[in-house]
Amino acid sequence: MTQKSHYIRDIVPGERVRDLFLIARADLGQSRNGPYWNIHLQDCSGKVEAKIWNPLSQQFASIETGSIALIEGLVETYRDKPQVRIDFMDLSPSGNGHDIAQFMPAARRSAEEMMEELEDLVTEHMKYKPWKKFCRKVLRSEDIRQKFMTAPGAKTVHHAYIAGLLEHTLGVAKLCMAMCDVYETLDRQTLLAGAIFHDLGKAWELTSGPAHEYTDEGKLLGHIQMGQEKLEPFLKRSKDLEEGLKLHLRHLITSHHGEHDFGSPVRPKTPEGFALHFADNMDAKMNMIDKAYEDMEQAGQEWSPYLRFLERDIFRPTRTPDPARAKANKEKNQCLLPLKG
Amino acid sequence: MTQKSHYIRDIVPGERVRDLFLIARADLGQSRNGPYWNIHLQDCSGKVEAKIWNPLSQQFASIETGSIALIEGLVETYRDKPQVRIDFMDLSPSGNGHDIAQFMPAARRSAEEMMEELEDLVTEHMKYKPWKKFCRKVLRSEDIRQKFMTAPGAKTVHHAYIAGLLEHTLGVAKLCMAMCDVYETLDRQTLLAGAIFHDLGKAWELTSGPAHEYTDEGKLLGHIQMGQEKLEPFLKRSKDLEEGLKLHLRHLITSHHGEHDFGSPVRPKTPEGFALHFADNMDAKMNMIDKAYEDMEQAGQEWSPYLRFLERDIFRPTRTPDPARAKANKEKNQCLLPLKG
Amino acid sequence: MTQKSHYIRDIVPGERVRDLFLIARADLGQSRNGPYWNIHLQDCSGKVEAKIWNPLSQQFASIETGSIALIEGLVETYRDKPQVRIDFMDLSPSGNGHDIAQFMPAARRSAEEMMEELEDLVTEHMKYKPWKKFCRKVLRSEDIRQKFMTAPGAKTVHHAYIAGLLEHTLGVAKLCMAMCDVYETLDRQTLLAGAIFHDLGKAWELTSGPAHEYTDEGKLLGHIQMGQEKLEPFLKRSKDLEEGLKLHLRHLITSHHGEHDFGSPVRPKTPEGFALHFADNMDAKMNMIDKAYEDMEQAGQEWSPYLRFLERDIFRPTRTPDPARAKANKEKNQCLLPLKG
Amino acid sequence: MTQKSHYIRDIVPGERVRDLFLIARADLGQSRNGPYWNIHLQDCSGKVEAKIWNPLSQQFASIETGSIALIEGLVETYRDKPQVRIDFMDLSPSGNGHDIAQFMPAARRSAEEMMEELEDLVTEHMKYKPWKKFCRKVLRSEDIRQKFMTAPGAKTVHHAYIAGLLEHTLGVAKLCMAMCDVYETLDRQTLLAGAIFHDLGKAWELTSGPAHEYTDEGKLLGHIQMGQEKLEPFLKRSKDLEEGLKLHLRHLITSHHGEHDFGSPVRPKTPEGFALHFADNMDAKMNMIDKAYEDMEQAGQEWSPYLRFLERDIFRPTRTPDPARAKANKEKNQCLLPLKG
Amino acid sequence: MTQKSHYIRDIVPGERVRDLFLIARADLGQSRNGPYWNIHLQDCSGKVEAKIWNPLSQQFASIETGSIALIEGLVETYRDKPQVRIDFMDLSPSGNGHDIAQFMPAARRSAEEMMEELEDLVTEHMKYKPWKKFCRKVLRSEDIRQKFMTAPGAKTVHHAYIAGLLEHTLGVAKLCMAMCDVYETLDRQTLLAGAIFHDLGKAWELTSGPAHEYTDEGKLLGHIQMGQEKLEPFLKRSKDLEEGLKLHLRHLITSHHGEHDFGSPVRPKTPEGFALHFADNMDAKMNMIDKAYEDMEQAGQEWSPYLRFLERDIFRPTRTPDPARAKANKEKNQCLLPLKG
Amino acid sequence: MTQKSHYIRDIVPGERVRDLFLIARADLGQSRNGPYWNIHLQDCSGKVEAKIWNPLSQQFASIETGSIALIEGLVETYRDKPQVRIDFMDLSPSGNGHDIAQFMPAARRSAEEMMEELEDLVTEHMKYKPWKKFCRKVLRSEDIRQKFMTAPGAKTVHHAYIAGLLEHTLGVAKLCMAMCDVYETLDRQTLLAGAIFHDLGKAWELTSGPAHEYTDEGKLLGHIQMGQEKLEPFLKRSKDLEEGLKLHLRHLITSHHGEHDFGSPVRPKTPEGFALHFADNMDAKMNMIDKAYEDMEQAGQEWSPYLRFLERDIFRPTRTPDPARAKANKEKNQCLLPLKG
Repeated sequence: MTQKSHYIRDIVPGERVRDLFLIARADLGQSRNGPYWNIHLQDCSGKVEAKIWNPLSQQFASIETGSIALIEGLVETYRDKPQVRIDFMDLSPSGNGHDIAQFMPAARRSAEEMMEELEDLVTEHMKYKPWKKFCRKVLRSEDIRQKFMTAPGAKTVHHAYIAGLLEHTLGVAKLCMAMCDVYETLDRQTLLAGAIFHDLGKAWELTSGPAHEYTDEGKLLGHIQMGQEKLEPFLKRSKDLEEGLKLHLRHLITSHHGEHDFGSPVRPKTPEGFALHFADNMDAKMNMIDKAYEDMEQAGQEWSPYLRFLERDIFRPTRTPDPARAKANKEKNQCLLPLKG
Repeated sequence: MTQKSHYIRDIVPGERVRDLFLIARADLGQSRNGPYWNIHLQDCSGKVEAKIWNPLSQQFASIETGSIALIEGLVETYRDKPQVRIDFMDLSPSGNGHDIAQFMPAARRSAEEMMEELEDLVTEHMKYKPWKKFCRKVLRSEDIRQKFMTAPGAKTVHHAYIAGLLEHTLGVAKLCMAMCDVYETLDRQTLLAGAIFHDLGKAWELTSGPAHEYTDEGKLLGHIQMGQEKLEPFLKRSKDLEEGLKLHLRHLITSHHGEHDFGSPVRPKTPEGFALHFADNMDAKMNMIDKAYEDMEQAGQEWSPYLRFLERDIFRPTRTPDPARAKANKEKNQCLLPLKG
Repeated sequence: MTQKSHYIRDIVPGERVRDLFLIARADLGQSRNGPYWNIHLQDCSGKVEAKIWNPLSQQFASIETGSIALIEGLVETYRDKPQVRIDFMDLSPSGNGHDIAQFMPAARRSAEEMMEELEDLVTEHMKYKPWKKFCRKVLRSEDIRQKFMTAPGAKTVHHAYIAGLLEHTLGVAKLCMAMCDVYETLDRQTLLAGAIFHDLGKAWELTSGPAHEYTDEGKLLGHIQMGQEKLEPFLKRSKDLEEGLKLHLRHLITSHHGEHDFGSPVRPKTPEGFALHFADNMDAKMNMIDKAYEDMEQAGQEWSPYLRFLERDIFRPTRTPDPARAKANKEKNQCLLPLKG
Repeated sequence: MTQKSHYIRDIVPGERVRDLFLIARADLGQSRNGPYWNIHLQDCSGKVEAKIWNPLSQQFASIETGSIALIEGLVETYRDKPQVRIDFMDLSPSGNGHDIAQFMPAARRSAEEMMEELEDLVTEHMKYKPWKKFCRKVLRSEDIRQKFMTAPGAKTVHHAYIAGLLEHTLGVAKLCMAMCDVYETLDRQTLLAGAIFHDLGKAWELTSGPAHEYTDEGKLLGHIQMGQEKLEPFLKRSKDLEEGLKLHLRHLITSHHGEHDFGSPVRPKTPEGFALHFADNMDAKMNMIDKAYEDMEQAGQEWSPYLRFLERDIFRPTRTPDPARAKANKEKNQCLLPLKG
Repeated sequence: MTQKSHYIRDIVPGERVRDLFLIARADLGQSRNGPYWNIHLQDCSGKVEAKIWNPLSQQFASIETGSIALIEGLVETYRDKPQVRIDFMDLSPSGNGHDIAQFMPAARRSAEEMMEELEDLVTEHMKYKPWKKFCRKVLRSEDIRQKFMTAPGAKTVHHAYIAGLLEHTLGVAKLCMAMCDVYETLDRQTLLAGAIFHDLGKAWELTSGPAHEYTDEGKLLGHIQMGQEKLEPFLKRSKDLEEGLKLHLRHLITSHHGEHDFGSPVRPKTPEGFALHFADNMDAKMNMIDKAYEDMEQAGQEWSPYLRFLERDIFRPTRTPDPARAKANKEKNQCLLPLKG
Repeated sequence: MTQKSHYIRDIVPGERVRDLFLIARADLGQSRNGPYWNIHLQDCSGKVEAKIWNPLSQQFASIETGSIALIEGLVETYRDKPQVRIDFMDLSPSGNGHDIAQFMPAARRSAEEMMEELEDLVTEHMKYKPWKKFCRKVLRSEDIRQKFMTAPGAKTVHHAYIAGLLEHTLGVAKLCMAMCDVYETLDRQTLLAGAIFHDLGKAWELTSGPAHEYTDEGKLLGHIQMGQEKLEPFLKRSKDLEEGLKLHLRHLITSHHGEHDFGSPVRPKTPEGFALHFADNMDAKMNMIDKAYEDMEQAGQEWSPYLRFLERDIFRPTRTPDPARAKANKEKNQCLLPLKG
């Protein structure tokens, strides 16, 4: 029974479900007919609302967010959305070792595959030994590697899922390398180091759990300073790396938000600083649009609703006809998709 | 005598010069010792100030900006900069057909070479016939091609030299294609069309003469609208291009400044719109930094003065050692460098 | 039965209604007692909410927005507002040719009357033949005239009703002419042309239907550019109009929002440009206040609620006593009033 | 000799002048050849620079700004502008009672004429006795009337000349009355009272002398509050004027800058408040453009230089041909023109 | 029965209450089971929601906000908050003279005590007789003293309770005196006068009733101007106070918001002006944080929710251990605490 | 001869000087009569311009900024300011060990005295041993103490002189302690630690030499991050200090600029954070005003010129008469005053 068979993305009104779900949120409500629980169920394919009505509701004195429960119930419709009317819930289902990846959204590609690609970039572009050694040392330190494999890229805005930080880091690094092909004066290796570690602090700024909350340190110091602190011991130990290169790397990290308004205490003062900021911005925006496009595709809409983080609504224009693309028939693994809703 | 032998970049205090220069500016001044002319001489390698003191000054009732003159004089120093004390000037030197390219700064590469590379991009990426046909039609129309070969990219900020518009266009197009390699969902062909024509209106917004002044139309309508108007007859004639693709291209042009503040009446609403805006911004910034770096290199400085358009001063950091790069021994043609000063 | 007898403005809780209404919105809800329809009914005098409770609700698989329906029901009160509990609904009532004007709010005065006044302004002020000819040509072109008679002035902010664009255009034109009386240096005729056509693009930026939605073109290009394109063929054909005057007119249209922030790619550079921008702004503000005043008058309030578009609440101050005004006894036609709510 | 015969507007290089001028500014300079005085001479037609070279310069230990002096000298040219080389100066010329109006720029029309027109507006529009009585009382109080006849409208930006405040007040009042013709709901009489007294405090915010300096009170309290205080005793004595009307008038004055940013402690909350703010803004802008146009006309330029207060350069577009206007042959009194420079 | 025995802060779900409460808000709702009243009850210790369900609800045609009622009912829970299900309500309970202080939140300390402390500050610091006389005159004028004893410090943001204005005034005055100890050049006495009267106008800007609404004058003129007007007669009568000191005091009041954006028509131009603005800002912020801390303490949270007026969430950090502080055992009077919710 | 006898503050036109001065700036100019040096001389009492005319000028191929020279010359007047016409200059005067303090402006009080007062604050307020130990450790570390004794508080804006950082730190600390007296909930000890170390990074952000230039690190990382790094080893070694207190201290440093715009990557989230930001801002402003007041007092002006950093001009108002103050007869040491000019 620890094997999920039903994913939220697939449930349809009218059917009955019996499966494991993560409790993403649980509030006690009160209606004329007594207390009821308003619950958000989650798995890797999406979220759905559910209700436990009186008198079943009274069996649960409290329901802990983040726990995995066995749920049984009927799928109804409320305001045009499916909603589960729960008639049975087991908060501690047997078979404790549930694979958390089944219950949380994740990046499209596996963390291992992305980490490998990141390390390949180091191998390919880092011709200067001290840089290569430094990057590998950091990427292969147990603590940091572990964080990279799981940390989200942001709380809600972009890459807000397992290994989202790694996906974002990879995107920024690739874009930076592409920029170096166009602008030859850029210092390719320092820029790559900056791209790889620009958001390192985020791994500690947010918790990795289902809710991606900010840590106290994250809110009081910010991920830029936290990243610097994580890198510092590695920098100190890289005796063969020029001090000027270390200073440049630290400047890249500290200035990568581009403007004071976005939390950078100093603004970019080198071409690599500008390039990193553009790449960071571009990759975040592309991820937000990507997420919006998926929803629009599902809903068959050409215009997105107003997207707060982009401060506009987004359009899916006519695409240039492309026979090659049409053929590609992607099979999507339900659990490698960004969370709906 | 119509053959220039001395370039401004090379003149040194103490020597005498006798050569052709373009008069970039001429004002009549008045000192205790009588009237004098304060003149800016220009050739493709740079600018230098010059003076015609009394009584020679009185021989010239007026001096027209933009004319080419034969100048003779002694190079002195004033406030640490060279200054020519003119003792002979012929405002209509024999041999009328002076090659204007000798007197104005130009892009590093020849316009022909860059245009060819731009057309190669069309050939390589435009798989959809109607797009390819459209782009070629526009690029090969006599009027537009001619403008592209000479128009500057901006009045003063970036690419402010002959064929600067073409150089900028090529940079943006290449960066956009690099982005498509990283973000596969981008519509590569529409984006390329947008990149190639995003600043088309600039060819009419500015005059192509030595001073790069705005035209009345340029100041009253802006280059975005002017570009739309230039493209419109070509769009109308492209019967096989989908209306949706035409609309997208027009949206890309109209929104490429990214924000209302920068003069875009609408902001980007498609991923290609974001990408074009980023590429445009990045290419302009890289050109500004490039220009500043050249000055800093000559002056042996690590920090630039405050650069108004970047709203900061710029740093030349320690570069990652690169044996390959060190070997490359660039021979620079004096006339293919951005203007100093 | 196609004759409406009851207008929304007049319905009172407790009575029964049986009449034709436009369905402005329809959402399916779900309560403990089963599904219900939440509906917004509309006619030219206002809007009212209505409910179709279970089991009647189940008779309607879908309800199309924008259709006209025969409704029967009881008027109840919900949260101090009237609400219709529908007990009969016919979605395709006999007598198909319903006069849409009965169901949508409209400007206070008839479109014909306002168009006539606009043409009178041309006759009165256009002393220069080519201007007069040009304005008449455009105003009398079938397509444009038709749009002017029906298009709203904006989506929601001001003049958001049938012929609202015409009403706004007329207001701006009259205010501009009044300004010319005070500031004699203004070029009265060019300014009048600018006033008449400044928002022409809005006729295509928004759909004219009950919902006033933006068109794709409207969102991707903006009404300023769309207006220019509509005028262009007329400008091309006006051979006797000086190019400088045409350029000025186009500048007026392109700059009439006054600032980049409000979507003008260039800002006004002539006194006529400033005047048009002020008049446009003033007329829009007066219309918003007018609408708020009507609601306040009905509700007997001195202060409006916070008005988002004016970013403040509005006050109805003590009026200077005016015997003349008091006598005027306006009879209001229900269908010539801005929509309530 | 107290009769001016030469006006600055007319002086030409090469001639000698001997006439009375106001000393607008005087600084002692130091050249290799000894000390010299750098002086700005002024009369009602404009300003011109002048020099007193060594040794004559040593005759004047100090030169007081604002005094009227008899000047003799040769008109030379310096940087394309005329400059007077003074060879005689009498700082206390006989005939003390110089008519100050000959030495300071003034509004185009006489103060008496404008005041009469302002009072006519009161007579024409103030149908409500208490308003008419109130306005007349204030306008006819000796102190206020005297100020109105001489005070400038601003320090430098607009209407910065004798009776400029009155000219501006009249312009705003006329524009407001024109607005009332278009928007019938406006309370014409309260608005007129607001227009007439909106800038009353300016008469005390600035000194009326040649330099238009701010007073301490002006800088520490601002003209809005100062105006309120000047009106207060009149308001208190108008027993028959409704309190609500008084409050509205005070609101109009306090909010007429429109936004906090421009120094209004509250923003307009009534339609009359919006109207007054628009009229104030429009009249100021028209005056700035007017001034710029005059300079451009003299210099034969189509584009103004960058105007700091309008934050742009201004264009003189092609005018609609107007036979009537062409005929009007204005004879201009030198002393009724805004100051050049 | 006019003696309250139960305070809202203490009620717990499950118990029955019978006591006097102030009706802070009352809306008529409509459910499937008929009309119901949604009511906010208030006393000095907090607020609680209550419902009167059908058919009892029908006994009350209207319920006036601000009245005091005898309520009986059962305390239930709704969405984790207590809610009173009313089964008896007497809108005009006998014993009319209810002590309003039992029903409204108030400052922590009594108004008398705070007023005494304020007068002590005058006695201690005002060494210059005319200042001392002036301050006492104003503080002891019946009207002003009365207002100070009851007026709130703001509508909702900070010090929004009885005598909140006095508490804020005292805080600002003490902080200013502390600043004078550090910066000796500050004019201690003028600054104290400024601190005491900086917000005087607020006593008339807001009503003192349960709802703290803005008055018409408050919204149309603002408290800065209103304060000036209240002080003016006192200033006029203080013949022995230097005009320059009066002007400085008026400048302090007019500029104390620091920036135009916050409604100061002029910005501080003296060191005392800067000091007063900082103290005003600091005291307001400390009060907002204080309020948030109390809620957080009760809820046992380290982070506050997002606080709109501070534009951030607030943290309760680890405190430096302090044995002295731990011992202090504050007994809190329920009615001297800021309102919860 | 190494004993200065003449200070710049005292020199008067007409006299001859022969003394040691620091060369603050030296540019080579060119006049019709040949090259000349334009020099800024400096000592602890102020700055003065000087000239070395041809042919003496030709004796100096270069003049190094920052060196101390023996100067002889005549004091003349140029544009109402004194200017030294140098007729002898020895760039390496005998007696090398010049006391730098004679040539640079310094804080009013001696660094030793201020450091003692700062340590006294620690002794007085730090009741919690771990805090006291920590603060003393840092303040007594050789490197940091040395920096504190000499570092300026900023490049140009405020406290821009020897030990200016210490003076500012002391001011902020005292103001924070005064705030704790008014707001009892503030954590006095953590706040004091924050006040003492908030600008620590500035000691490395700027060079301590005569020019106060930014270091590369200063411009690329900013003083906030640099301060954190300096404190980090001390924090790590303070085993008995709670982690929560350390985190709070680090938050105080990182957030003390108050807003992103001023370079704080995070904004204050605790009351101590608000208090520190206010105190920092207040102390900087008071120092700027102090400096302006000194100049105004010397010049006998009531209004300062426009002060760019305060974005306004400043007024010296009438002071409350104070017999005590009048008696105090301060003797000022020329070398303990902020630099003029």
